[in-house]
Amino acid sequence: MGSMKAVQYRKVGSRPEVVEIPVPEPGPGQVLLRVEAAGVCHSDFTVMSWPAEGFPYPLPLTLGHEGAGTVAAVGRGVTAVAEGEQVAVYGPWGCGGCRQCATGMENYCTRTAELGVVAPGLGAPGAMAEYMVVDDPRHLAPLDGLDPVVAAPLTDAGLTPYHAISRSLPKLVAGSTAVVIGVGGLGHLGVQLLRALTPARIVAIDLAEEPLELARRVGAHEVLRSDEHAARRVRELTGGRGAELVVDFVGAEPTVRTAAECVGIAGDVTLVGVGEGRLPVAFGAVPFGVSVAAPCWGGRAELLDVLALGRSGAISVHTETFPLEQAPEVYERLHHGDITGRAVLVP
Amino acid sequence: MGSMKAVQYRKVGSRPEVVEIPVPEPGPGQVLLRVEAAGVCHSDFTVMSWPAEGFPYPLPLTLGHEGAGTVAAVGRGVTAVAEGEQVAVYGPWGCGGCRQCATGMENYCTRTAELGVVAPGLGAPGAMAEYMVVDDPRHLAPLDGLDPVVAAPLTDAGLTPYHAISRSLPKLVAGSTAVVIGVGGLGHLGVQLLRALTPARIVAIDLAEEPLELARRVGAHEVLRSDEHAARRVRELTGGRGAELVVDFVGAEPTVRTAAECVGIAGDVTLVGVGEGRLPVAFGAVPFGVSVAAPCWGGRAELLDVLALGRSGAISVHTETFPLEQAPEVYERLHHGDITGRAVLVP
Amino acid sequence: MGSMKAVQYRKVGSRPEVVEIPVPEPGPGQVLLRVEAAGVCHSDFTVMSWPAEGFPYPLPLTLGHEGAGTVAAVGRGVTAVAEGEQVAVYGPWGCGGCRQCATGMENYCTRTAELGVVAPGLGAPGAMAEYMVVDDPRHLAPLDGLDPVVAAPLTDAGLTPYHAISRSLPKLVAGSTAVVIGVGGLGHLGVQLLRALTPARIVAIDLAEEPLELARRVGAHEVLRSDEHAARRVRELTGGRGAELVVDFVGAEPTVRTAAECVGIAGDVTLVGVGEGRLPVAFGAVPFGVSVAAPCWGGRAELLDVLALGRSGAISVHTETFPLEQAPEVYERLHHGDITGRAVLVP
Amino acid sequence: MGSMKAVQYRKVGSRPEVVEIPVPEPGPGQVLLRVEAAGVCHSDFTVMSWPAEGFPYPLPLTLGHEGAGTVAAVGRGVTAVAEGEQVAVYGPWGCGGCRQCATGMENYCTRTAELGVVAPGLGAPGAMAEYMVVDDPRHLAPLDGLDPVVAAPLTDAGLTPYHAISRSLPKLVAGSTAVVIGVGGLGHLGVQLLRALTPARIVAIDLAEEPLELARRVGAHEVLRSDEHAARRVRELTGGRGAELVVDFVGAEPTVRTAAECVGIAGDVTLVGVGEGRLPVAFGAVPFGVSVAAPCWGGRAELLDVLALGRSGAISVHTETFPLEQAPEVYERLHHGDITGRAVLVP
Repeated sequence: MGSMKAVQYRKVGSRPEVVEIPVPEPGPGQVLLRVEAAGVCHSDFTVMSWPAEGFPYPLPLTLGHEGAGTVAAVGRGVTAVAEGEQVAVYGPWGCGGCRQCATGMENYCTRTAELGVVAPGLGAPGAMAEYMVVDDPRHLAPLDGLDPVVAAPLTDAGLTPYHAISRSLPKLVAGSTAVVIGVGGLGHLGVQLLRALTPARIVAIDLAEEPLELARRVGAHEVLRSDEHAARRVRELTGGRGAELVVDFVGAEPTVRTAAECVGIAGDVTLVGVGEGRLPVAFGAVPFGVSVAAPCWGGRAELLDVLALGRSGAISVHTETFPLEQAPEVYERLHHGDITGRAVLVP
Repeated sequence: MGSMKAVQYRKVGSRPEVVEIPVPEPGPGQVLLRVEAAGVCHSDFTVMSWPAEGFPYPLPLTLGHEGAGTVAAVGRGVTAVAEGEQVAVYGPWGCGGCRQCATGMENYCTRTAELGVVAPGLGAPGAMAEYMVVDDPRHLAPLDGLDPVVAAPLTDAGLTPYHAISRSLPKLVAGSTAVVIGVGGLGHLGVQLLRALTPARIVAIDLAEEPLELARRVGAHEVLRSDEHAARRVRELTGGRGAELVVDFVGAEPTVRTAAECVGIAGDVTLVGVGEGRLPVAFGAVPFGVSVAAPCWGGRAELLDVLALGRSGAISVHTETFPLEQAPEVYERLHHGDITGRAVLVP
Repeated sequence: MGSMKAVQYRKVGSRPEVVEIPVPEPGPGQVLLRVEAAGVCHSDFTVMSWPAEGFPYPLPLTLGHEGAGTVAAVGRGVTAVAEGEQVAVYGPWGCGGCRQCATGMENYCTRTAELGVVAPGLGAPGAMAEYMVVDDPRHLAPLDGLDPVVAAPLTDAGLTPYHAISRSLPKLVAGSTAVVIGVGGLGHLGVQLLRALTPARIVAIDLAEEPLELARRVGAHEVLRSDEHAARRVRELTGGRGAELVVDFVGAEPTVRTAAECVGIAGDVTLVGVGEGRLPVAFGAVPFGVSVAAPCWGGRAELLDVLALGRSGAISVHTETFPLEQAPEVYERLHHGDITGRAVLVP
Repeated sequence: MGSMKAVQYRKVGSRPEVVEIPVPEPGPGQVLLRVEAAGVCHSDFTVMSWPAEGFPYPLPLTLGHEGAGTVAAVGRGVTAVAEGEQVAVYGPWGCGGCRQCATGMENYCTRTAELGVVAPGLGAPGAMAEYMVVDDPRHLAPLDGLDPVVAAPLTDAGLTPYHAISRSLPKLVAGSTAVVIGVGGLGHLGVQLLRALTPARIVAIDLAEEPLELARRVGAHEVLRSDEHAARRVRELTGGRGAELVVDFVGAEPTVRTAAECVGIAGDVTLVGVGEGRLPVAFGAVPFGVSVAAPCWGGRAELLDVLALGRSGAISVHTETFPLEQAPEVYERLHHGDITGRAVLVP
């Protein structure tokens, strides 16, 4: 077709660069998307911190695992979407056939390693480009009027907390308490999701005043400074009982410890953040009946739900938009904590 | 390619015929299957009884919604299966993108009508031919050594009862009772599935001695003649409490009545059979807390489970095989009740 | 002790009367409650319409199955509550030991008939008196500051819709639709519960403008007149798909028909109202995968949840209070539809 | 009444003794049981290993948290059971009123500490006596013909694994794998429960040949020596996928590590054994979507189910019976691993 701009990680240890590459063509069964929004996610730093030896993806790699845009062209045999439709990209691509994929939980596909299935921006060319190829229409969700700049971050920063809290919904009845540790990109959506989906009291914990203020604004009933007293305060707020759910969006050693100390009998701890913390589980090491989970991303139907919540206004994501060309400095700013909310590249 | 034999319903009101038609070619994203087994299902008579006016499918229609075979060729862009693999066909094709399809419950696709999606043998060319085209690899499940003659009927006669009982599994604890009404093609698999999946006591009800004998052989703990005393006997067997689940594979007026009289407080009645019976539900018309459902076929993950049960020997289906050419007389015999177990055509 | 006023149904066919009877004493294991609120429920008319022959309860019967008050005395051996505590009465008393009761779903106790267990106001002396005896402390829930006048109606008019919608919560995701038919005492709480517990769009249907106005005020997104067009309108509002849940709090022939016509594939219909309507279920008679349930009242843990929702302000019940002495005319007014919200007697 | 023999832990650090104490009398609402079987459980050693300082229970303490027998007398106000009925004792007594207790999960009562509620043999006088008092009839389950010698160990050694696997049942479909580590008193029942309740393949892991032989006899499909190769072997048996459930009945450092290495994506690890092992959980430290739980004992309805499984023969417990007087030496033998199966005292 022609050429396009793309943000690529080209060499292990280097910084992302904006390059000019050919516009890809969709093969049979594939879909070409004109990207209208690509979220910039902190987890890319994890990928870019891996050493050259054993680096799992071919380089250069076009980054971006949060994408939304308009169908520009469909490959032969594609009937489920048509040119001109606005869609978001379901990111955790699976094989489509294993038992997990057969329920739409492609984030838990058991055959990705064996079959070499990789997700966009995480092995396959991602959304930080003018165009991207999506391997199968089942990995697209209709926007139905939702702004792509909102939709893009929802595909990860919205879907991940949605999935993280989903297993605990039956416990989050009226009178229960949910603790959210870390009110950043995912956490501030976690607070809103808990408000939209449950009658639980929500306690947000963070280090700084600004995120706690944000937490309060988006629906937290109580906010607490993240220090050695936080868990005790949660106990007090719950009449000694502890929380039915603690979601840790940080995953650092102190936050994981706080999580363990907050949770009540038969409660859930859910560890989302990619920190260095480890929560040691054993009979007697946590309250009776506690379960500790480490979920990843979310399922296909869950993405539909999250987009519907965005559409209805039940959740909103604070975004700051940038042109594609500024990607390198956006990563820089993100790294230094200079981004409020979610940065979204708009090609 | 060349030509092949196929069993077609060609004119409303006529009988199925064996004809010679061209071997189809798989388009991009599609799969060509060399059919090794095609189950003959009673529900085809329903289709063939519909009047010409408003007949929903284009004719001629190649019959067969229970198929298994070997991948003969894949269309462009197909990577999930390869030539030579043995597979069964998931029959209730959906759109793949709606919320139901996103969880693999394509049997409850909410967009089939709107998009004109039809299932093989029920609108699209079916399995009663030497070759068939499957629209997407996600509609195939690996046989992994299971005999295609066994697999084919399991895709409907196994999947339908599996899905029918699935919602009731939490109620079917030790000490509970499940009643199966009608021990035919689906019912005799229903009995086996209940044995394989639950510790419930199983009571089978049928009109004749032979199916009751079959029920006993495949695992029913009690068998009862289907008459006006059956419900009373179930009450006696359960200490007056009634059954936690009643599955009616007949759906006739008397069986539906028996179902309503058998079920206990907070129990489930599940109506699978396509008879003329109607169960009138209201507060006070059924025991407190009863729910009555009318499921249809099953989901993608459920098919994987059913095939695994077949593979392990936990369930077995009594089959009688016939060459494709004998399809017309097999339908005739099925119509007259002269088929024991499940008839399977082997091209 | 002394004597007290009580509202009794004394003779089949007569009207309730206010009489003077001895204050009861709590036996071992029992609790004496000083009643502070007793809800007046439409379902009492059903009891009072039954013929003398086969009338199931001994007469005279002190009415009132919705009660709240303060513990006045405890029988010997009672340690779980103490004098002076404010509590609501869990009404659907069961045996406490059967499998249903062992999960707290005493509303589905399978041994009430066998053991002669009866509920207060429905066999046992009820809450429409200055004092009532509660058979076991497990049938009491702490008010924790909730107004007894609010708590009393919540024990039935709140608990019943809570339990009715509980099985459908997993289906009521963002983008789904819940239809509430009949916005009376239970229905207006049903609307609020759906708002508090789910992100579903709520459509309320009623005959008159006033209840529809109420529905809108308490959270319904759409309101529809109950006529022959209502179901079509629901289909339109849902893009043809139908509703994921329809709860019918009326149960009349036309509302049940509307319910059946509103519900979408794999949706739930839940019949709560005690009308003459019957919904005939069969494969093909309702959309694929629909289930129709007839629940009754609710479980012990569910009552705790409902009270917590009342406490937090997530739901509120419109009440009109009357002295105990006016019970006969309150029933009269209720019968003529002259009560807005829920009538509560305050001894 | 008179006096009776009882096995008591009388002084911290001492051994259990057989003493003569008065037969207790049931207060109002209580039940006196003539004990016919009392299981001897390894976990008593934990209690008896606690230091004097902070020892949580008053001494002397009559031991025995697994009891079954015949109702000898009922206190005033008790109607739910009658003299002469054979019952098993539900051990994890809770307050009966909190939200957990309201669903019958008294093992997760959130108010035991606050209210000083203690379980028989674990604070309250236990079953190792000729008679014991049960605080409330809801803590009794009818034997309905089950041998008390079988029932007693099932109340803990059966109930604990039943509850431990219950959360994982939806994952244990055909084709899935459940790993049981440690085939002792609880483990050999765990294997049987998995067989009775699921179609999963069961892999048992233990250090010695004898328990592995037992595992095979009671239904394990595969058995493995507990060494550094065990996890790899499980991976091989599951085509690299890992297990859907690993239950560790040992809880030692090496078994917990094996558990972590065995479990597959989105699988469950359940830690039951009271060893020194800790499983460190974090995103990236376990496969995606894994959850690790530390359950305790089980719920009231679950006990009914376990007894029903015992009654039907679906599970059987290997018991060795001893007179009450031999309790001290039975503990001695248990400590030295000289008991095969479960030791049961028969007064």
